[in-house]
Amino acid sequence: MTLPDMLTIDTLLAAYRAGSLRPTTVVEAVLERIEAYASKDPAVWICLPARAELLARAAELESRDQKHLPLYGIPFAVKDNIDVAGLPTTAGCPDFAYTPQTSATVVARLEEAGAIMIGKTNLDQFATGLVGMRSPYGQPHCVFDSRYVSGGSSSGSAVAVAAGLVSFSLGTDTAGSGRVPASANNIVGLKPSRGVLSTQGVVPACLSLDCVSVFATTVDEALQVEAAAMALDPQVPYSRVMQPYALPKGAFRFGVLAEADRFFDGDSENAALYAQAIQRCQAMGGTAVELDYAPLRETAELLYNGPFVAERLAAIEPFYDAHHDAMDPAVAGIIGGARRYSASDVFRAVYRQHSLRQVAAQMWEQFDVMLLPTMPRLVSKEEVRADPVGANSLHGVYTNFVNLLDMSACAVPSGFRADGLPFGVTFIAPAFADHDLGVLAGRYHALAGVGSGLAKVAVSAPAEGVGKGKVLLAVVGAHLKGLPLHYQLEQERAVLWRTTRTAGDYRLFALPGAVPPKPGMFRQPGFDGQGLEVEVYELSAAGFGRFVAQVPQPMAIGRITLEDGQEVSGFLCAEAQARKGQDITDFGGWKAWLKADKA
Amino acid sequence: MTLPDMLTIDTLLAAYRAGSLRPTTVVEAVLERIEAYASKDPAVWICLPARAELLARAAELESRDQKHLPLYGIPFAVKDNIDVAGLPTTAGCPDFAYTPQTSATVVARLEEAGAIMIGKTNLDQFATGLVGMRSPYGQPHCVFDSRYVSGGSSSGSAVAVAAGLVSFSLGTDTAGSGRVPASANNIVGLKPSRGVLSTQGVVPACLSLDCVSVFATTVDEALQVEAAAMALDPQVPYSRVMQPYALPKGAFRFGVLAEADRFFDGDSENAALYAQAIQRCQAMGGTAVELDYAPLRETAELLYNGPFVAERLAAIEPFYDAHHDAMDPAVAGIIGGARRYSASDVFRAVYRQHSLRQVAAQMWEQFDVMLLPTMPRLVSKEEVRADPVGANSLHGVYTNFVNLLDMSACAVPSGFRADGLPFGVTFIAPAFADHDLGVLAGRYHALAGVGSGLAKVAVSAPAEGVGKGKVLLAVVGAHLKGLPLHYQLEQERAVLWRTTRTAGDYRLFALPGAVPPKPGMFRQPGFDGQGLEVEVYELSAAGFGRFVAQVPQPMAIGRITLEDGQEVSGFLCAEAQARKGQDITDFGGWKAWLKADKA
Repeated sequence: MTLPDMLTIDTLLAAYRAGSLRPTTVVEAVLERIEAYASKDPAVWICLPARAELLARAAELESRDQKHLPLYGIPFAVKDNIDVAGLPTTAGCPDFAYTPQTSATVVARLEEAGAIMIGKTNLDQFATGLVGMRSPYGQPHCVFDSRYVSGGSSSGSAVAVAAGLVSFSLGTDTAGSGRVPASANNIVGLKPSRGVLSTQGVVPACLSLDCVSVFATTVDEALQVEAAAMALDPQVPYSRVMQPYALPKGAFRFGVLAEADRFFDGDSENAALYAQAIQRCQAMGGTAVELDYAPLRETAELLYNGPFVAERLAAIEPFYDAHHDAMDPAVAGIIGGARRYSASDVFRAVYRQHSLRQVAAQMWEQFDVMLLPTMPRLVSKEEVRADPVGANSLHGVYTNFVNLLDMSACAVPSGFRADGLPFGVTFIAPAFADHDLGVLAGRYHALAGVGSGLAKVAVSAPAEGVGKGKVLLAVVGAHLKGLPLHYQLEQERAVLWRTTRTAGDYRLFALPGAVPPKPGMFRQPGFDGQGLEVEVYELSAAGFGRFVAQVPQPMAIGRITLEDGQEVSGFLCAEAQARKGQDITDFGGWKAWLKADKA
Repeated sequence: MTLPDMLTIDTLLAAYRAGSLRPTTVVEAVLERIEAYASKDPAVWICLPARAELLARAAELESRDQKHLPLYGIPFAVKDNIDVAGLPTTAGCPDFAYTPQTSATVVARLEEAGAIMIGKTNLDQFATGLVGMRSPYGQPHCVFDSRYVSGGSSSGSAVAVAAGLVSFSLGTDTAGSGRVPASANNIVGLKPSRGVLSTQGVVPACLSLDCVSVFATTVDEALQVEAAAMALDPQVPYSRVMQPYALPKGAFRFGVLAEADRFFDGDSENAALYAQAIQRCQAMGGTAVELDYAPLRETAELLYNGPFVAERLAAIEPFYDAHHDAMDPAVAGIIGGARRYSASDVFRAVYRQHSLRQVAAQMWEQFDVMLLPTMPRLVSKEEVRADPVGANSLHGVYTNFVNLLDMSACAVPSGFRADGLPFGVTFIAPAFADHDLGVLAGRYHALAGVGSGLAKVAVSAPAEGVGKGKVLLAVVGAHLKGLPLHYQLEQERAVLWRTTRTAGDYRLFALPGAVPPKPGMFRQPGFDGQGLEVEVYELSAAGFGRFVAQVPQPMAIGRITLEDGQEVSGFLCAEAQARKGQDITDFGGWKAWLKADKA
């Protein structure tokens, strides 16, 4: 088969399953593409394993059962501040390089899932930068225009995906390094919640903030990679278990920049594209809410213009002391700046960070997610050469605060300027919203119609599964929308999933004397009815638990079967009690009966 | 009425309700006791409001309805690093003193609940100490022996409760200041989870670690005070909402020091009292598990012998720079030591702290709580004068690590040496276990039989209510202990609450062909049976939610009525399905039938 422009996981897995493709073929094609792209941009990779090694890995996979390998034969790239056993880790600094014996936990997990590590990619030295220019291994460029930077610090990883060289790649994201290059190259950049992907085997930038990030063609595929890579890693000081945070599935509120805060450094096209993005979210059922950007701006300042730079020094202090002359001057300047701060300065900054987290926590009362430009505008290589720090800072205006405030983020393509340069937006939510945030961002990406990568391949909206740790509950009576007990669902932030009918063998009776009026439903195997109208809601396990605990006699919650055969939790009534009332099964539902009863 | 030796909240509230006591009487009696005790120990208080003000407060309360004031007329003391509007806050340092316009959040909340603020108590300067000797306002002594220290830093607050001067008092606890003085004076010291009591209006020691703590006669009363004082306070960087963490209610595992780690600085009596404490916990249904003390010891070292001392400097840096000559020399020496550390040193220490948290988190797989001596032994004033830092350090051996590792702790009396000096133990659990930990510690305290305070008044075990956010579930069939589906309850850490029977109108049928075998129960109003045996478990709302969502047809979960009339959630079966099986109601329960069926 001919491989598609973007090597999506879905396409490859389907072809492997169908027997029309083998990992060996993919490895060969990938190496061919890498070679061809090198003539256009030779700065994407720092190191590739030997061809023979890659082919051996492909052959090894071919000897195994694909069924148990969720990323079977999927080629991926790794930013060169993440260890891969047997290959040098340079962090973009040749004098710093070392060759690890074992791979970083995330790399090992992805390989265990069947993925093929294709090579190590270029980056801003020590992941300190947002342009991709601070590297002695060359400066990758935007896939759409060689005069512009690729964005950084995960420069090579983003280009590798956008140019269709690999299916996905790993970056890291402290200040925005997993989002900015995604925006610059029209792909998805998932910035997971801090700690859910292990940073064991990753050269730290700011250890308390660093996240391993994922570049992919679609949000769906980025979430697949995150799921495969995710695990609590007690070796890592900041490792955490994912405890999913739910976002509304239907109508949602999204925070947007006030007019006065819409800074695009004079780029009126990007300003218009951001306005368009807001309209698009409104079309998706979102309500725009102006957000107070001041605390986020203050947080962003903490990252580079305060004692947090001492994290960067703490990560490499002996190396810095001995070799700072061998470092990129911009990077050495930033890291050396840590010497200006005292121990008590650090604590004051950390206190301020926590105070700003409290402010941010209150923001989520006003909206469910934020919609921000990923960056004001993409800068050119010439601009960076003229002003290495200023041009770099411009890229971080809308990204720097996210990890300091412990948020999850997902950058997706959103549009193009007339000159063909891409514009991206980032959805931001509280920690652990990764999945639900990704689903929302994925719906947006599909709706934007700008496709993905250099080839702008079409993307479709993600399938919406029930959130992990969630329960579906069918209600049939007084809990229906508009009826007296519906507030109990609202209290638990239940989200309407769908309106449907039960299987045909359920019967409905109006309970005599119930206050408020309510029906009782029970199943009568063999009864041949038309099914009863139900509303199905999604609740958290805890919300569902609290809800069930207050369901009074003679009602109960059990599994009920819907007309399409799906089983969900739902209201049932003790049959003997229900039969004391009027049989209203023929009305097809409680609301229909209420209407008829009133008439 | 004659006031009791210890002014317990329960006694006062009961007398107020009965009309046999008025707040004015209590204020007058308290002032009399304070005056009398001053002749024995003049160093307990730093500042008392004018008598007229206290009487006005009492009169104001008497004009209000007691019903809505859970701490109506309860006298309490406040450590003098916590603001009370209109009184100077000295933090034990006259040159530092200021007079706040508003009270600390915790004080304000307690006053809103009806409590009467009686006065500000002595402390080790800037809460930096564990002896109570580092104060220019005198050195309180142990209520049992004036040659010994009261413990610190919350020295006056502990004595005020132990001597029966007030019902409860507020301390603060960073290194152990809320536990050590409790142990020294035979009272309860509750060290809440970090952040659940606001530190707004508290002079920081180490802001990231500081906890407001509670001294009381019983754990029950300390928990009452915590509940009244608790609230999320977004002004405070580290404020958190309490999210209760459950501990087992029946059998439990407790971590104890290995023989080699049992350091009592040569005090063989305390060593024996600790061994006795372990036996007492075993008698309560606990299983002792040796714990690895090395990571806890390493954590403790971080607090004073590392960059965390810079938190103490950050709290008062301008004052320190201008006035360190006016400070207690030991305190000034500790705080000034912060200047030895760089910004990057701080981050490395914080990383180590988080690594040690990961190690500690894994400890909770081995046991549910820790049982430690609160301190190796109480030191004398003479010892402190001879070695101000060394003697102080001895008090913190078993307390320093707790806040760095984000744990909850409760210190309770445990025994007496032959010379009449008290020995205490501390129960320690993960963050947010405050309530369940307190119940366990309270049961222990009652069992120890050593009473509370100078008067050693008898204490009874706390009433065990269902934990907040918990659900009771009655199981009747395959989920009973020892049966095939019981593991589903274990997965959710369900705790057996009691074994009892349903009301008499429930019927039980053996479901035909069920795998594993299970019965179906339903209620038949009017049926006059003997009730059916059930086991009632406590689950978290989320655990209950997950459990309910997997209950298969034709079972359901509804409210069922127990023989004593209590309603809990429980298993029900669709009657029509149940009736297809054999009626086994007369056996009185599933296990009885299984036994009969086998025989």
